[in-house]
Amino acid sequence: MTPASGSALGEGAEFDRIREIVKLLGNRAGSIGDDCVVVPDGSGTLVLSSDLSVERIHFRTDWLTWREIGWRATAGALSDLAAAGAAATGVLVSLGSPPEAPGESAVEVMGGVGDAIAAVGGVVLGGDLSRATEWVINVTVAGRAARPMMRSGAHPGDQLWVSGQLGGARAALSSWLAGVEPSAGARQAFTHPLPRIALGRRLAAGGATAMIDLSDGLGGDAGHLAAASGCRLEVDLASLPVHAEVAAQAEREGIAPPIFAGQGGEDYELLAALPPSFSDQAAGRLAQDTGVALTRIGRVVAGHGVSFRLHGEEVPLRGYDHFA
Amino acid sequence: MTPASGSALGEGAEFDRIREIVKLLGNRAGSIGDDCVVVPDGSGTLVLSSDLSVERIHFRTDWLTWREIGWRATAGALSDLAAAGAAATGVLVSLGSPPEAPGESAVEVMGGVGDAIAAVGGVVLGGDLSRATEWVINVTVAGRAARPMMRSGAHPGDQLWVSGQLGGARAALSSWLAGVEPSAGARQAFTHPLPRIALGRRLAAGGATAMIDLSDGLGGDAGHLAAASGCRLEVDLASLPVHAEVAAQAEREGIAPPIFAGQGGEDYELLAALPPSFSDQAAGRLAQDTGVALTRIGRVVAGHGVSFRLHGEEVPLRGYDHFA
Repeated sequence: MTPASGSALGEGAEFDRIREIVKLLGNRAGSIGDDCVVVPDGSGTLVLSSDLSVERIHFRTDWLTWREIGWRATAGALSDLAAAGAAATGVLVSLGSPPEAPGESAVEVMGGVGDAIAAVGGVVLGGDLSRATEWVINVTVAGRAARPMMRSGAHPGDQLWVSGQLGGARAALSSWLAGVEPSAGARQAFTHPLPRIALGRRLAAGGATAMIDLSDGLGGDAGHLAAASGCRLEVDLASLPVHAEVAAQAEREGIAPPIFAGQGGEDYELLAALPPSFSDQAAGRLAQDTGVALTRIGRVVAGHGVSFRLHGEEVPLRGYDHFA
Repeated sequence: MTPASGSALGEGAEFDRIREIVKLLGNRAGSIGDDCVVVPDGSGTLVLSSDLSVERIHFRTDWLTWREIGWRATAGALSDLAAAGAAATGVLVSLGSPPEAPGESAVEVMGGVGDAIAAVGGVVLGGDLSRATEWVINVTVAGRAARPMMRSGAHPGDQLWVSGQLGGARAALSSWLAGVEPSAGARQAFTHPLPRIALGRRLAAGGATAMIDLSDGLGGDAGHLAAASGCRLEVDLASLPVHAEVAAQAEREGIAPPIFAGQGGEDYELLAALPPSFSDQAAGRLAQDTGVALTRIGRVVAGHGVSFRLHGEEVPLRGYDHFA
């Protein structure tokens, strides 16, 4: 094996598996083989994040293909880099797979990982394989940002913007839980979230004061941004960009679509606070350049907590909590 | 909450858990709260590694305390940094815990993580919590090295050195598997491996050409170093530094102690190739400064594979393979 396709490894079934993965990844892999990976110094500050996905908590193997499981776990982790306004360097992936899983499944999951990291210009830096009772995937993302964004910089007077459309992943999840195959659009939202790396960098450069990605849903993550920034957020739910697949599912469940979308987790869109100088024109240009819609949904005021209003009424919006 | 004890978080059971952990960690935690952590630029090259520990594969909750589970998972990951000759910056920890686990268990595991990273001068940078059927802990370590060591630099003519004593962890494991509580010494070797960070840095500075940590056992890891370096290793098993607790257990199993020790995994000692100019006197000084013994166990020659000899006889030595 050449250094480009990973250091030579010793014998053993685990290392055969690693060789298969390195072969599949091709130029989407860094120099895999050593226990450690070495990241050359670059410009900007290093940004790291780790995300754990567990079978039956975060995904089900009868809903998703192996490739989709790998893509989704990786895209979810990359979404944290997007919220930091960082460019992606690469990922380290730890994969625990059950002994009864098909032989090719771990390799296919890593193929999905490779697709997702390649889509944002990074590589698979390394990882670890283990046996486990259920599938577990931990993705650690590494990137760089000139000025890393946090949740904590929003000021009264800032306006709140959200990327893309919300609620699509929940629409798929609700369908599956009701025993119905989701529509193609909802399924796509759940299985192939697109990490907003390019958009996050542009928002950071455009003066964003705080950002967070919507993994726990707007109902949860808006609260985190408010708490970290020491401000109050006022969100107008009527202005929420609701995913096209939400209406039918929300009606089935008797929930107003913006509430369904605002309580849905794992859309991996960005919530950003930007000063009022960030205009509708600037948002339009940014949307055109990145292909991602940007919608103004509220504002930052003095105080604490989050107020969600729908047609003048205060609405309590829950977040998604894995321990709930 | 002050920035030093983590960004303010929103409401929810998961975030209450995180608050408890941040409180317990005290000054062993970085600024936890955002999804990403920011690592300031420093001197040297960034080194990263990820290690997944799974209940019943890597540890059992009836053998170890929660603190020991956290220490061991972290020390195992830090051992990869030691083999790279890197200093430790910090760790990101993803923890999946079963719903029926005692309320304090996740916090206690993170206490063990904090103890291990503090012992080598780093901090807990961040992490992720999830529910899971069985305990899973993924530890990603980040560090810096002036000249990161790999497995791949050994040359014919180099000599092979090993740190500490081998086989102690296997002695404990064998006892537990036989239904017997291990001796205090063997138990200590299994539950509290000491990451050889200081020693690894000194060996790198002292001219080491290749290093690897013994997680899969000498029988497995020597093969990796040989394969990556494109050389053959000749190991004299009679010179192996065998842990004091090995003799009794090896005798019970009818295995020669050096073979028992050489096939034992998870000692987390270092195997290093060093040029012949690295003298016994240099090794003695290094051992005195770091408090860790260094033993010469063989040499690097042209060819491939590993030859293990015991009193003149060639002995096939297996490694430890989680997929076997």
